[in-house]
Amino acid sequence: MGIIKTKNAFVTGAASVVGSSEYKGPLGDLFDVSGEGDDTFGMDTWEKSESEMQRIALELAAKKRGIVPGDLDAVIAGDLIDQCLASTGGLIGFGIPYFGIFGACSTCAEGLLAAAVAASYLHLRCGVVTSSHNCTAERQFRFPVEYGCVRTPTSQWTVTGAGAFTVEDSPVGAMAEICDVMLGRAVDYGITDANNMGAAMAPAAADTVERYLKESGRAPNDIGLIVTGDLGYEGGSILKELLLERGYDISSCYRDCGMMIFDTEEQDMHAGGSGCGCSATVMASYFLPKLMTGEVSEILFIGTGALMNSMSLAQGTSIPGIAHAVRFKCPQGGK
Amino acid sequence: MGIIKTKNAFVTGAASVVGSSEYKGPLGDLFDVSGEGDDTFGMDTWEKSESEMQRIALELAAKKRGIVPGDLDAVIAGDLIDQCLASTGGLIGFGIPYFGIFGACSTCAEGLLAAAVAASYLHLRCGVVTSSHNCTAERQFRFPVEYGCVRTPTSQWTVTGAGAFTVEDSPVGAMAEICDVMLGRAVDYGITDANNMGAAMAPAAADTVERYLKESGRAPNDIGLIVTGDLGYEGGSILKELLLERGYDISSCYRDCGMMIFDTEEQDMHAGGSGCGCSATVMASYFLPKLMTGEVSEILFIGTGALMNSMSLAQGTSIPGIAHAVRFKCPQGGK
Repeated sequence: MGIIKTKNAFVTGAASVVGSSEYKGPLGDLFDVSGEGDDTFGMDTWEKSESEMQRIALELAAKKRGIVPGDLDAVIAGDLIDQCLASTGGLIGFGIPYFGIFGACSTCAEGLLAAAVAASYLHLRCGVVTSSHNCTAERQFRFPVEYGCVRTPTSQWTVTGAGAFTVEDSPVGAMAEICDVMLGRAVDYGITDANNMGAAMAPAAADTVERYLKESGRAPNDIGLIVTGDLGYEGGSILKELLLERGYDISSCYRDCGMMIFDTEEQDMHAGGSGCGCSATVMASYFLPKLMTGEVSEILFIGTGALMNSMSLAQGTSIPGIAHAVRFKCPQGGK
Repeated sequence: MGIIKTKNAFVTGAASVVGSSEYKGPLGDLFDVSGEGDDTFGMDTWEKSESEMQRIALELAAKKRGIVPGDLDAVIAGDLIDQCLASTGGLIGFGIPYFGIFGACSTCAEGLLAAAVAASYLHLRCGVVTSSHNCTAERQFRFPVEYGCVRTPTSQWTVTGAGAFTVEDSPVGAMAEICDVMLGRAVDYGITDANNMGAAMAPAAADTVERYLKESGRAPNDIGLIVTGDLGYEGGSILKELLLERGYDISSCYRDCGMMIFDTEEQDMHAGGSGCGCSATVMASYFLPKLMTGEVSEILFIGTGALMNSMSLAQGTSIPGIAHAVRFKCPQGGK
């Protein structure tokens, strides 16, 4: 098994909530809501701030779709916090059936994959929500931001942001159609550096892209756009190299949300953005609208995640990556 | 949306791996593999021990089915360790497409739910794996076992165990059929005591059972057996009380895996067993074989989970529960 065909699966609403650094970045104007300076979203812990971003994002995505969250059949969500607690805290108030997923930073793609299957075969209208917050993630995986640690050149900046989507089997007002999806495999190249997530995730992305292209028999340029979640500059260049070795040149059709969300030099973001919120907000605010207008006709979205926790880092266990694929096309047709 | 009908979804293989306390319990002889005293499974960290249990369990479930893990289309897995790393570590070696889920101790039911949908509608043959290890979970959520803390009367003992299942659309040699499934909702009754998981999970179990019975129009005794994952004595009695208040008397058809896995008094296990591995090993080794032989014709299995992490406990955030439903019947027919 590889590619799973979906049928009549459409993204009908999408919303993004970001922190102040993301708002100051090159895509800032496109995001729906920003953190107004302190990124607390009115909460007294960073964990609750992240939950609040999820809550706002889902409410807004539903609103754009013309419904309220209670109209959703289920919500599919996950995040980077231990035991995915940002999602629990943010979404419990809606009282909707809840399907918890974990895919590290690939969660946005994993959720869209599951929702597309649920729409296609169960005729469910699901919400998909994910998030990350720089202050919760850095403290949990590396150092509290308040320490002011010097960061290495390959380190990425965990995005403060939440993205939410509504997915269903009706094309009315759709932003994009999901045509097929593919689950990734965990791939371990022996990376142990928590400040080089790009290198940990790139081999998994290469594995999924290669499997997808082989099975579909298509060439990268034929698809038009291959967009990874958050490989950043380091991981993105490794991905291109790995795929070139395997006979696929993606250099002219490749984008990475982690390279797009910040003005990396101006904002001193080293290798780019990362985190569940990175691809979720960039897909919701930048790529899906381009599919909706037809400016872009097709995207192979590869959500990328690094599978580690603070204990595994302390124990020196290597960090596998995983990458799930979701292929979108312009809802008015296209290929 | 509530009950999701599945069609042609069968559990065709199941295996259980447990620690030495579980092996000494009343179901001990039924488990496939036990930890031989030290519960390390030959590994040098508890985390790797837990992963190793998952690896052994999946390999064995596949073997019982007459296949190898590589013959599976995908594996659906999750556990209690931060970022579900027991699953990553245990399953990465198989190189199978991987769908990560998080439902705390409800993970076994959540995985069977997803696999039943994948079998029914995508014709996929999936593995479902979950685990818990007393030494990884207690250290992470409460205190390292080595401290020898005195435990409160309502505390449960996290089961050391892993359960694995193969689920597919072919009934040949099936142990049980999955007829329908229902996603739970996160429910918060304000419990903040990490030593009273039963009370945190019982309201979610009551919510799911009530929703299931209402929508199906069936009475508890008509179903025959309602089995919760790991409410234990405290949570189980709360569940019965909550449902009685709502007009449902389950007292004569109710079982709980957490009350069954240990000889609670003899083994000094206080309120019973808990953890992802609890319901997974008891379903795999006790209930599914009873469905296979026809000794039991139908089971409504309610996986129960408590949604917390070490940070939320430290911050005094209350602990919501969640409960997912999977209805099994004897594969040779029945209702």
